[in-house]
Amino acid sequence: MKYTSNELLEIFENHLAQIETPSDPERLYTPFIYSMSNGGKRLRPTLLLAAYNIFDDDIAKALPAATAVEVFHNFTLLHDDIMDNAAVRRGRPSVYAKWGTNVAILSGDAMLIAAYKLLRRSPTEMLPQIMDIFNDMALRVCEGQQYDMDFETRAKISVVDYMHMIELKTSVLLSGAATIGAVLGGASEDDCRKIGKFAVELGLAFQLQDDLLDSYGDEKQLGKRIGGDIIEGKKTFLMMQAMSRADEPTRDILRYTYKDDTLSDGEKVARVKAVYDRLDIPRITEQNISTRFERALTILDTLSVGKEAVGNMRDFATSLIGRTK
Amino acid sequence: MKYTSNELLEIFENHLAQIETPSDPERLYTPFIYSMSNGGKRLRPTLLLAAYNIFDDDIAKALPAATAVEVFHNFTLLHDDIMDNAAVRRGRPSVYAKWGTNVAILSGDAMLIAAYKLLRRSPTEMLPQIMDIFNDMALRVCEGQQYDMDFETRAKISVVDYMHMIELKTSVLLSGAATIGAVLGGASEDDCRKIGKFAVELGLAFQLQDDLLDSYGDEKQLGKRIGGDIIEGKKTFLMMQAMSRADEPTRDILRYTYKDDTLSDGEKVARVKAVYDRLDIPRITEQNISTRFERALTILDTLSVGKEAVGNMRDFATSLIGRTK
Repeated sequence: MKYTSNELLEIFENHLAQIETPSDPERLYTPFIYSMSNGGKRLRPTLLLAAYNIFDDDIAKALPAATAVEVFHNFTLLHDDIMDNAAVRRGRPSVYAKWGTNVAILSGDAMLIAAYKLLRRSPTEMLPQIMDIFNDMALRVCEGQQYDMDFETRAKISVVDYMHMIELKTSVLLSGAATIGAVLGGASEDDCRKIGKFAVELGLAFQLQDDLLDSYGDEKQLGKRIGGDIIEGKKTFLMMQAMSRADEPTRDILRYTYKDDTLSDGEKVARVKAVYDRLDIPRITEQNISTRFERALTILDTLSVGKEAVGNMRDFATSLIGRTK
Repeated sequence: MKYTSNELLEIFENHLAQIETPSDPERLYTPFIYSMSNGGKRLRPTLLLAAYNIFDDDIAKALPAATAVEVFHNFTLLHDDIMDNAAVRRGRPSVYAKWGTNVAILSGDAMLIAAYKLLRRSPTEMLPQIMDIFNDMALRVCEGQQYDMDFETRAKISVVDYMHMIELKTSVLLSGAATIGAVLGGASEDDCRKIGKFAVELGLAFQLQDDLLDSYGDEKQLGKRIGGDIIEGKKTFLMMQAMSRADEPTRDILRYTYKDDTLSDGEKVARVKAVYDRLDIPRITEQNISTRFERALTILDTLSVGKEAVGNMRDFATSLIGRTK
């Protein structure tokens, strides 16, 4: 049977609810459960299952790997929150804020190991290939996080550097998830590679969309205040683009506004957005998103399976990029 | 060919020297290389190779897994040093002290993933079984570290609690390494289980020996000052045994001496050791070590391979327990 992404999400959530986690030692496993119950979009497991479902209908075979990538993703959030001093994660205290650094380090470690334990439950004959994909993906995600941290202290970052970093931090994981799904579904080598490329483009479009919504989304639909990235002085696609297009005095506005204590948060956001608008950054970003999104869909159409089989994946991708939150 | 543990160690070091690590991002991989070059006893990989060598002569087949357990071990040290605020590791600054917490977290994560990448290079047909052993081992090591941290804030810890904790923190990793070696060597299920039990007992004996040497070793041979555990108020086998045998006033001496600012380090060590001596703790510890060591050797003799084949392993175990440093 072919499933829509919403159906896959429901299947995944049901599967997740049935997984038993050890209870002792309590301070090791409670943060693990807390972290996995944070909701979130379940983007990566859904993508894995959708990729699998293009080639095979027996979803159960892909559920352990889907859970593995979600556990891995939450492990990265848990450790990233320590490194980024992020006290809040999806409206709740982050593990690090709630239990302290040591607990966050160790329960994160346990989650990474648990991800491998889940991955191991994939069909044995596919295990070596899946481990290769997962290992490379996982290492590259760490590299992305390191580049991200390096950027904090580097004065000059090009748009190319930024795209490379978010490719590692976001796209690699989506691409790995999709490829693992295709491999488990028995796709040809060629189709697996294409699915991987599709997910890279989709992931980049998704991340740029995220950056755009943070400054130009609708506050009500997004459920959070607009301009968080600007207030924190975060390096985003919008900021990198603006820096590469601005003259030196305008660059100083982009560089220093978030640190200016004489301005309110609202004034900071307004000032930077005025620069963005003047430099046409929203349109440039939208164009970049739509180019990548179209590229992703085009790759999807070149799979050996025919347009019917990729209908649900196409709908899923469209819902991700068309989102307003 | 059958190798002595010194020969296996040399083979392992040569193998390690040939492994290439990526150079970029530099702050991710430099601490990795730094951590692996810290020397140390290479106990776990040597044990893995020695277990393998009981059943098979083609050592090359076991080298990736041996490297995986050593990388895993160093990953745990790297993260433990953050959690324990340990600024020095084998006479050099720990990764955490040298590069900061964030770098230590992330390069540790990369090491854990790299361990799985190495493990993956074991013969494909054995990969599922080896992953099961490795995953269980790795999770239990995390549990051990959590219990260890929990003990810091717990007033009452029994000798049984302490033995359980060090079984998880030390023996489980040795046992996992030995079992993986035996599996790779093609040992029977029964022999694999026995090798695992042998290593648990050996590991416990080794840890108790460590505790004993820290208070009663020879300063020159050990290469460090005697009594570090006492000065830090560390919970060791000696301390747990003494607490369980002391009357209430003596317990207070054991509890509070290390915090007593009126005493020099030397006086603290002397005062606690006087209690140990009075309660016969050194002899009790030695007895416990030798009971476990004998038990380990007895298990070794019940393997299906005959006494010849286990000669090198017996020598290796004897050198570990007979050590003075």
